[in-house]
Amino acid sequence: MHFDTIIKNGTVFTASDTFRSDVGIRDGKIAALAAGLDDADEIIDATGLYVMPGGIDSHVHIAQPSGDGIVMADDFASGTLSAAFGGNTTILPFCLQEKGTTLRESLKDYHAKADGQCHIDVSFHLILSDPTAYVLGQELPALVEDGYTSLKVFMTYENLRLRDDQILDTLDSARRSGALVMVHCENEDAIRYLIGKHERNGDLAPKFHALSGPAAAEREATHRALSLAEIVDTSIVIVHVSNRQAMEEIERARKRGGKVAGETCPQYLLLTADDLDAAELEGAKFVCSPPPRDKESQIACWEGLQNGTFELFSSDHCPFRYEDEGGKLNEKGKRNFRWIPNGIPGVETRLPILFSEGVSKGRIDINRFVALSSTNHAKQYGLYPQKGTIAIGSDADIALWDPSKKVTITNDILHHGADYTPYEGLEVQGWPVRVILRGATIVDGEAFTGAAGQGAYLRRAKVGVVSQNR
Amino acid sequence: MHFDTIIKNGTVFTASDTFRSDVGIRDGKIAALAAGLDDADEIIDATGLYVMPGGIDSHVHIAQPSGDGIVMADDFASGTLSAAFGGNTTILPFCLQEKGTTLRESLKDYHAKADGQCHIDVSFHLILSDPTAYVLGQELPALVEDGYTSLKVFMTYENLRLRDDQILDTLDSARRSGALVMVHCENEDAIRYLIGKHERNGDLAPKFHALSGPAAAEREATHRALSLAEIVDTSIVIVHVSNRQAMEEIERARKRGGKVAGETCPQYLLLTADDLDAAELEGAKFVCSPPPRDKESQIACWEGLQNGTFELFSSDHCPFRYEDEGGKLNEKGKRNFRWIPNGIPGVETRLPILFSEGVSKGRIDINRFVALSSTNHAKQYGLYPQKGTIAIGSDADIALWDPSKKVTITNDILHHGADYTPYEGLEVQGWPVRVILRGATIVDGEAFTGAAGQGAYLRRAKVGVVSQNR
Amino acid sequence: MHFDTIIKNGTVFTASDTFRSDVGIRDGKIAALAAGLDDADEIIDATGLYVMPGGIDSHVHIAQPSGDGIVMADDFASGTLSAAFGGNTTILPFCLQEKGTTLRESLKDYHAKADGQCHIDVSFHLILSDPTAYVLGQELPALVEDGYTSLKVFMTYENLRLRDDQILDTLDSARRSGALVMVHCENEDAIRYLIGKHERNGDLAPKFHALSGPAAAEREATHRALSLAEIVDTSIVIVHVSNRQAMEEIERARKRGGKVAGETCPQYLLLTADDLDAAELEGAKFVCSPPPRDKESQIACWEGLQNGTFELFSSDHCPFRYEDEGGKLNEKGKRNFRWIPNGIPGVETRLPILFSEGVSKGRIDINRFVALSSTNHAKQYGLYPQKGTIAIGSDADIALWDPSKKVTITNDILHHGADYTPYEGLEVQGWPVRVILRGATIVDGEAFTGAAGQGAYLRRAKVGVVSQNR
Amino acid sequence: MHFDTIIKNGTVFTASDTFRSDVGIRDGKIAALAAGLDDADEIIDATGLYVMPGGIDSHVHIAQPSGDGIVMADDFASGTLSAAFGGNTTILPFCLQEKGTTLRESLKDYHAKADGQCHIDVSFHLILSDPTAYVLGQELPALVEDGYTSLKVFMTYENLRLRDDQILDTLDSARRSGALVMVHCENEDAIRYLIGKHERNGDLAPKFHALSGPAAAEREATHRALSLAEIVDTSIVIVHVSNRQAMEEIERARKRGGKVAGETCPQYLLLTADDLDAAELEGAKFVCSPPPRDKESQIACWEGLQNGTFELFSSDHCPFRYEDEGGKLNEKGKRNFRWIPNGIPGVETRLPILFSEGVSKGRIDINRFVALSSTNHAKQYGLYPQKGTIAIGSDADIALWDPSKKVTITNDILHHGADYTPYEGLEVQGWPVRVILRGATIVDGEAFTGAAGQGAYLRRAKVGVVSQNR
Repeated sequence: MHFDTIIKNGTVFTASDTFRSDVGIRDGKIAALAAGLDDADEIIDATGLYVMPGGIDSHVHIAQPSGDGIVMADDFASGTLSAAFGGNTTILPFCLQEKGTTLRESLKDYHAKADGQCHIDVSFHLILSDPTAYVLGQELPALVEDGYTSLKVFMTYENLRLRDDQILDTLDSARRSGALVMVHCENEDAIRYLIGKHERNGDLAPKFHALSGPAAAEREATHRALSLAEIVDTSIVIVHVSNRQAMEEIERARKRGGKVAGETCPQYLLLTADDLDAAELEGAKFVCSPPPRDKESQIACWEGLQNGTFELFSSDHCPFRYEDEGGKLNEKGKRNFRWIPNGIPGVETRLPILFSEGVSKGRIDINRFVALSSTNHAKQYGLYPQKGTIAIGSDADIALWDPSKKVTITNDILHHGADYTPYEGLEVQGWPVRVILRGATIVDGEAFTGAAGQGAYLRRAKVGVVSQNR
Repeated sequence: MHFDTIIKNGTVFTASDTFRSDVGIRDGKIAALAAGLDDADEIIDATGLYVMPGGIDSHVHIAQPSGDGIVMADDFASGTLSAAFGGNTTILPFCLQEKGTTLRESLKDYHAKADGQCHIDVSFHLILSDPTAYVLGQELPALVEDGYTSLKVFMTYENLRLRDDQILDTLDSARRSGALVMVHCENEDAIRYLIGKHERNGDLAPKFHALSGPAAAEREATHRALSLAEIVDTSIVIVHVSNRQAMEEIERARKRGGKVAGETCPQYLLLTADDLDAAELEGAKFVCSPPPRDKESQIACWEGLQNGTFELFSSDHCPFRYEDEGGKLNEKGKRNFRWIPNGIPGVETRLPILFSEGVSKGRIDINRFVALSSTNHAKQYGLYPQKGTIAIGSDADIALWDPSKKVTITNDILHHGADYTPYEGLEVQGWPVRVILRGATIVDGEAFTGAAGQGAYLRRAKVGVVSQNR
Repeated sequence: MHFDTIIKNGTVFTASDTFRSDVGIRDGKIAALAAGLDDADEIIDATGLYVMPGGIDSHVHIAQPSGDGIVMADDFASGTLSAAFGGNTTILPFCLQEKGTTLRESLKDYHAKADGQCHIDVSFHLILSDPTAYVLGQELPALVEDGYTSLKVFMTYENLRLRDDQILDTLDSARRSGALVMVHCENEDAIRYLIGKHERNGDLAPKFHALSGPAAAEREATHRALSLAEIVDTSIVIVHVSNRQAMEEIERARKRGGKVAGETCPQYLLLTADDLDAAELEGAKFVCSPPPRDKESQIACWEGLQNGTFELFSSDHCPFRYEDEGGKLNEKGKRNFRWIPNGIPGVETRLPILFSEGVSKGRIDINRFVALSSTNHAKQYGLYPQKGTIAIGSDADIALWDPSKKVTITNDILHHGADYTPYEGLEVQGWPVRVILRGATIVDGEAFTGAAGQGAYLRRAKVGVVSQNR
Repeated sequence: MHFDTIIKNGTVFTASDTFRSDVGIRDGKIAALAAGLDDADEIIDATGLYVMPGGIDSHVHIAQPSGDGIVMADDFASGTLSAAFGGNTTILPFCLQEKGTTLRESLKDYHAKADGQCHIDVSFHLILSDPTAYVLGQELPALVEDGYTSLKVFMTYENLRLRDDQILDTLDSARRSGALVMVHCENEDAIRYLIGKHERNGDLAPKFHALSGPAAAEREATHRALSLAEIVDTSIVIVHVSNRQAMEEIERARKRGGKVAGETCPQYLLLTADDLDAAELEGAKFVCSPPPRDKESQIACWEGLQNGTFELFSSDHCPFRYEDEGGKLNEKGKRNFRWIPNGIPGVETRLPILFSEGVSKGRIDINRFVALSSTNHAKQYGLYPQKGTIAIGSDADIALWDPSKKVTITNDILHHGADYTPYEGLEVQGWPVRVILRGATIVDGEAFTGAAGQGAYLRRAKVGVVSQNR
């Protein structure tokens, strides 16, 4: 058998299996798994390396406007490049509907930003900020048929939050059309109440961002979202869960029979609210929502990754520059945490962090790493079996990891548009040394060997919340 | 020692004690407990009777307008008379703030309705439907000082519901002024969503009222109310809890350190959603919110009365006539459950039901009956030790119960303004045969021996949620 | 009305009520509660004092042999004197059945030790160490009829532990005869396993006593005892609960419908395992079983006293001298914790500790103090209403407390036979300044004004686990 | 590439993946996965079939003596033949240590019974009934090194049960040597107590077997086993879990940090205690321990298979003939349920039941079926990656399933030695139509094409409880 490419001598990992095998690739697909393959145009030696499905990051913000002159630090070029260097072959960014616009208009806008820019494959989630009857009744069903099978709603942020009646109508429409709804769960009114209280007390430093968004506000909204989904009888994904209380709501909903997927992110494993209290205004670098909590919450989130409370591990990449006027330290943000843009970069560091803190430190095994970093994302969001695994017929999206390579993370080795990383100085063991997209090597060591524009738009299937075979 | 009145030969019950003693009354107060008292103007023979504190019903709606020509079936004359015959000596009705009015105006209005009409003692809770800055910043603190130390907010009913930001501000004001906040917990938007769904399906019969307000909608709002109180760091009362899920929210809040009192009502012990499905439109008689649930929920509510999840057992008396145009079967209500006025009568049957189903059937002991029917209400709402017990110095508000008397409840033996009782035909064992208000007998068997207007307005102390010594 | 004694001007507390009243006593009974009583042989001025039911300590070890030359530090004379000074008027000590003896023989032996020695009223629990067919089939039923209505079994201590089959048979016999079973819950085999492990490692200091009896061993036995009681369908008391895990077992059993009472003790509120690690061999002073745990466990136990997990607060008084050869530091005990006698003194300090740490520090109210210190014991063990309250007809067993008196606890102000107190140096606020037994003052300040031998043996009624009206 | 055998045109399922691929087999191993393989000595057409790892049944009793003339219905010939027809390629039967014998002697005995008889691969668990110092200190460590890496202990059965001290010592030895301990959790004393009670009442029918082993007895022992493992700090497997209460103990142990695997069996999904009450003595056919419970327990067990409470689904095959004197209806068993041998056949029906009731009815997906039927057993008991998956290098143990084939289960189509099946008349959809052991077809439709004696003894690796990537 002749192949375009053979990956030789590596150890292959899937979400359940571990085996030594060569991988034969033909026409961008995985065509054979066997020992002793040798007839190919290109032979990649993977001796000592882990052969794993390319990462899928299903929670990425790129080029979204934040109002007030705030500018996101990544466009689709830099964002997807950064993702590629982080071991990813697919990302799912958001297409934000601005109020007063339609979903089609928004998609047109985001596709315009992304066209020709993407270094890896891409598929958009929709963010609904204006769920009009037209949007819910006409556009959404049609877009789901077109492969936009997931959407996100916010329970916080003054300009994005939906009221409960709007969430119910959105869930209802999603249920009918087969879309999956992701929910950002924080109680906006509670946060506003606490911000006001802190402002009246003159408590304006970055750390008050964390104190204004306590776990109770997240737990409340999580339970509410789950209850509304229960009433509509549909599936949802609770994204970026930060603490045990919210995790318990997910588990309780499952016990009631609810179909719900859970997601957490690196910031909830490595950061705490204390980081927002760093000297000067350095704390601004860690302002994101929900805010990082405490050590016990980190332990809880690890448990959730181990025991299945979480099926998804994403970055919630939402990058802003630190020093810029359009970034964290804009004029107003310097004076009051309320104006510090919300979000941190992470698409490039997500997988090395999970590998190093998870696999290398013995918290999870490598198969679980594959599930959390890739397979479950593909299954949950309608990309499987095209994406998310190493199996016959799947796209040859593969990351070769060197499990023993040690790297100290600093911002200057990263490829995103931000001028800092929250993980500056973190030493990790395990690194993606080669990334292959549909059979073509796009990252080789420190070199990018692919091209902007090679990334494809992916059409996704309709799925509910899928059991990840816990 | 000379007394105005002596109650001889009875068995006295308090929330913790049981003892045989005569009770000496002087100047409307309990002046002595001893055996062998005999020097008095009036001697009441209580041989074979239980001498218990007069009932306090802390959840009663009287003469509240419901809009649309709907008229409540009781005014203060009939409502308090009915309460007296039910073994009560104090009720706490609501004073409803209509939108656009002040609390003072509302109180003036309700006092005008009540002046000279009350057969027993009365103290108003405030219902806040329009929590303006003036109301929260000026009026409420002043009214609390005047003895109006509790208020209620609604999370449901289109014209009454407060948004979360309003609830937070109200809780904040209550915390500062020392008021206690009662919350009606149901998610209005979820109910509206379900009503709309049923209407689109042409499902308009009374039973769809129950299906439009599922336990999930109550559980959601209960958790939300408790979370908002947690964020404000104040105490609340969850009223008329109907099922185990909402009870679990109360217990979880307590485990988190929250101060919360719980209340349930007779309808959740005796009725189920099936009652709303009675033939013809008879189901309308049982339309109330939250709706009665199922047999398992009844068991759960009994457990809550036994184990302390509930400190309060109230009637949520909210009477409408069945046959009237201004009542349950108004023209629109006949055609669509949405227009059936919400509420059922119960101020007269509350205590016989609790005694018969609870004490006579062995579910609770008599001391617990005293706590649930009277003592805890007095302690929770700032009336103790003036009210709620049989102890030296307390008001001589006493009900003499015949524990073996059997009565079949029918509407024609009741004294409320409604033309039906939800408990028609229920046989109970145990009946209040004599009711004494501040030393004066006002009910003697089937005769009312007091006078309208003898009821006093009670000024109440500020208390948080008090532990009922569980 | 003429009385033998009147207590004037105090504030009376019961388990549910608080009122200002004089107390008239006649023939050793409470005959009247009223203001302005003044005709008596003796008038006690209680201005500024709390008038409360005398304490009942339902868990006291006196004059029990421990084998190997170990001698308990109190006989009935010193034990009951110490109890009296601690505000108690009744104690329930244990009568230990030695293997090979009958219950009647054991009772004869303990009565012989107690006859003429008791300064306050006394009633024996039976300890069954040899539940033969004769004991369970013949003796126990007869003794229950004689008023010995409670018994205790041990799941630990090599010479006392019963096997599961013996516990089942004992529970079965108790169920038939109406006796209530108290259970000491620790898994003996687990403790032996850990002792062996520590011994092999040469870990012999007192602190290894705590490490040999972990919370898991207590939780296991607690769940087992509750399960056996569930299978036999009878009530039990879980005594001296030390931590949250065991408390959760009690709550779970209640949710399954089990009737179970819970008890904790001062050592679990004030001591921790760290105390066993005191310098030299001072840790031996704190060796008891279950061992004190940690700060979180103390918090948990307080929550249990507040929320009703515990109905009973007892001392588990089990005194040994520290310096004596027959005490803590016997020759073998100095070398290996295994031989340090198990138990600490506490009958005199129980109530001042609960009052000071509980009432004075605002953790519980005074009515709850009354319930935990006296009323619940009387109700649970068949002494109510003769004992445990201030109500007409009850024994005039009264303690007058000065709520503001500050005392520093040191061993030289105590009256027990031990040569130390675990609470040396503890400052408490609130002290019992006068103790009245059946109408006669027996403690007046620092003077004992009664007589050995005045204590009566109490015959007790049969009760199951009674709900304490949580 | 040339292969011995190619399986063409099927759909391959692993515990996480689903893909269309041919499977190339060489030297009894899986050598290639690819489309379009065609060069082989033998080509098997799997069009329309599911290609799955051969089943592994890790809980099988064969040829164990039960005393009293009771004879197990299967020897190794019939037991392994039956297993093969049920889609299995490996079973793990038990080697029972009789009291007074060594483990080596027992193994010698069981190997003698099995030598030359096995139709599929086999590896023995050890049952320890006599954990002497020699057994725990010498034999067990050596046998673990020899590949006998798991053992089982009983908490019930008079002749097998270990005391807690013995369990602790066994766990301790297992921890040191790296063996995994399986525990049969039922409280023997509780069961004896209830048997005695029923016997005294003359309640001797088969249904009283179920009433003598209530869920409380299983829950108690489960918690105890988990607590003892917690104290020793080692991993255990809770086998044949029958109900939600025991499941909750497993989940609680995991929350405490315990490593524990859970197993359930077909009888707990399909049978209830009512089956033991069948007419005549037919109930005897369903006597097993723990007994089947009720419908709610079946629902609970399904939830456990879905959500990961259970990693293992085994048969607990323990066959007796119904009509024989040495079987269910032996002379004594006819008169008293106590003498009915405990156990039911099931090795052949396990997988069709799980497929039909699980996959065909939509309760679990096929990947979960693979995990529960094969992969998890291999991982848990040290056979992975040799067994339990379809991956390069693994043994070519493969079952071809026809997912649409409907079969009515009757005893005459089965190959075990029992004369009945508890599932007589059950219609299933999905059937293993071809079974391949190390590359050789051994079952082809209704024909056995292999040979007795072809089964190998498998040496197993040491593993603790492994997370199954929930």
